[in-house]
Amino acid sequence: MKVALLAHEQFPDRAKTAVGVLRYADYDVAAVLDRDSAGSRVTDHVPDVQDAPVVASMSDVDEDVDALIIGIAPIGGGFEESWRPDVRAALERGCDVYAGLHYFLAKDDEFADLAAEHGCELWDVRKPPEDLGVADGVADSVDATVVTTVGTDCSVGKMTATRELYEDARDAGMDAAFVATGQTGILIEGAGIPVDRVVSDFTAGAVERMVLDAGADHDYVFVEGQASIVHPAYSGVTTSIVHGSMPDYLVLCHEHGRDTVHGYDQEIPPVASFPERYEDFAEPVSDTEFAGGMLNTRSVDDDADAREAVADFADAIDAPADDPVRFGTESVLEVIR
Amino acid sequence: MKVALLAHEQFPDRAKTAVGVLRYADYDVAAVLDRDSAGSRVTDHVPDVQDAPVVASMSDVDEDVDALIIGIAPIGGGFEESWRPDVRAALERGCDVYAGLHYFLAKDDEFADLAAEHGCELWDVRKPPEDLGVADGVADSVDATVVTTVGTDCSVGKMTATRELYEDARDAGMDAAFVATGQTGILIEGAGIPVDRVVSDFTAGAVERMVLDAGADHDYVFVEGQASIVHPAYSGVTTSIVHGSMPDYLVLCHEHGRDTVHGYDQEIPPVASFPERYEDFAEPVSDTEFAGGMLNTRSVDDDADAREAVADFADAIDAPADDPVRFGTESVLEVIR
Repeated sequence: MKVALLAHEQFPDRAKTAVGVLRYADYDVAAVLDRDSAGSRVTDHVPDVQDAPVVASMSDVDEDVDALIIGIAPIGGGFEESWRPDVRAALERGCDVYAGLHYFLAKDDEFADLAAEHGCELWDVRKPPEDLGVADGVADSVDATVVTTVGTDCSVGKMTATRELYEDARDAGMDAAFVATGQTGILIEGAGIPVDRVVSDFTAGAVERMVLDAGADHDYVFVEGQASIVHPAYSGVTTSIVHGSMPDYLVLCHEHGRDTVHGYDQEIPPVASFPERYEDFAEPVSDTEFAGGMLNTRSVDDDADAREAVADFADAIDAPADDPVRFGTESVLEVIR
Repeated sequence: MKVALLAHEQFPDRAKTAVGVLRYADYDVAAVLDRDSAGSRVTDHVPDVQDAPVVASMSDVDEDVDALIIGIAPIGGGFEESWRPDVRAALERGCDVYAGLHYFLAKDDEFADLAAEHGCELWDVRKPPEDLGVADGVADSVDATVVTTVGTDCSVGKMTATRELYEDARDAGMDAAFVATGQTGILIEGAGIPVDRVVSDFTAGAVERMVLDAGADHDYVFVEGQASIVHPAYSGVTTSIVHGSMPDYLVLCHEHGRDTVHGYDQEIPPVASFPERYEDFAEPVSDTEFAGGMLNTRSVDDDADAREAVADFADAIDAPADDPVRFGTESVLEVIR
């Protein structure tokens, strides 16, 4: 399937979804839409992902594409009116449109009408299923080994770490599944439940359902965590995933150099305190071990410095650690296998 | 205002909402509907609340009533079809109907039509406001002292303890507010947000908004907690309330003799572990102290035995404790004042 990725004015640094799709999805990306970088190419900005031209608008996309994916998720999840001409143009060409916004495209009258007229699908991946329920506390009944990522903050690399662990596990011959809990993961995997959009009574239940489904067919289930147990706004999402997934192993994700909660006037506690924070939290509900850590060293230029940062992180959490993008996931995967 | 309370087959032991309204609300209760106990009186079942006849159906309610309140909240929050004749009869008499179910009366075609025809209001208290947002992490900016109740499990008495603390504080001349987070509390207070029904991204934000509102006008804010940090399904609700309210004090609620999670095959950890569990969880987000505990001794017949249970509980948590219904809240209130 061929797609275009909308990431106006935010590619690549604030376009987590677009970069995730470029790196991990099976889609063939025909173009990235960013009016600020039009004329460049994806690999001018992000190495080691599939390449594509960066263009100013949908009308500059020459190839036939099957879908336009909104590749940005602004704080609050609103729809920017400046994106409307591109979404309109996509639908008029017969393209489906996928989005992970809190604002649902399907409820926008113009988009709904255009989609009906041109036979297109509007997929709002952040809209949860209607039939969710309360967790039964039975996710640990699966035979599969369940591995859940957790973090010190939002946007430290949990989706990436989980996806890299999953892909490396498959490359190593392990029968692994990926459970997507956020819009980027869902857009990459083509399935999943956006747990941040589920009513809080059913959030753990949504995760439990996905773990039971994935665990029935696979030996290893890698669950994408969200946010952090110390986050002032989103900790309820984090804790629901930890208890709902009843993991055998937890993997801690952190970004090197991050010491305050992104967007908040709050310090992040010492990294060394996190394994115990999460283990103590998980323990009344499931038999959970701490497997190791995944460090995001994107702020470190030099590989040797990055290796040192990873070693320091491993020391701090007293467990194996890796940078999943830069160095791989082997040291943590060994614990799990 | 005069109300009838529907509690068929569940009054009083499984009719938390009905009993809460009888005990704490300003409403004048004309009758309780329970077809299993028709002919008895409320005080035959529950002492020390306002008395009223127990009747079989709405047609046995002779007085003019302003509203019928659904006083039961079954697991799952569904609407029992056997209640339909009473709701229908109420609307045909011009009564409003209040409910705290996941099933919204306003979306039921028959009830919506009857309400429109007879000029009645259908108040689904479990429907959250549409304009909620993400927490800013600023609940601690209020001058008020914020006190949040937490628990070892669901249904151990958090709403009751919070309400008793609030009422005792007011009786002692303190300028106190009550922040309702669940359907019973909202039905009693006439305001509040049902946080279990808020999408998980906004749950802490909903609590923060209520604390900011209440804290602007009062010296003490008592926040009704929900569920438990060790609950396999609802811990996300609990943690969102703790972080969203950024409390100055936590009060632990427990039911004497409860040692497994209600409805789940899971042990509750030792009560002695809870103060630290909650303090460690709250601490990265707010300066929070543990104030004491509230024990529910309804399973203990003898007052002397109940006093011993409270003393044991205080020893275990190493803090002042009380039974708010049986003995009052003074020992804990002293810490807060």
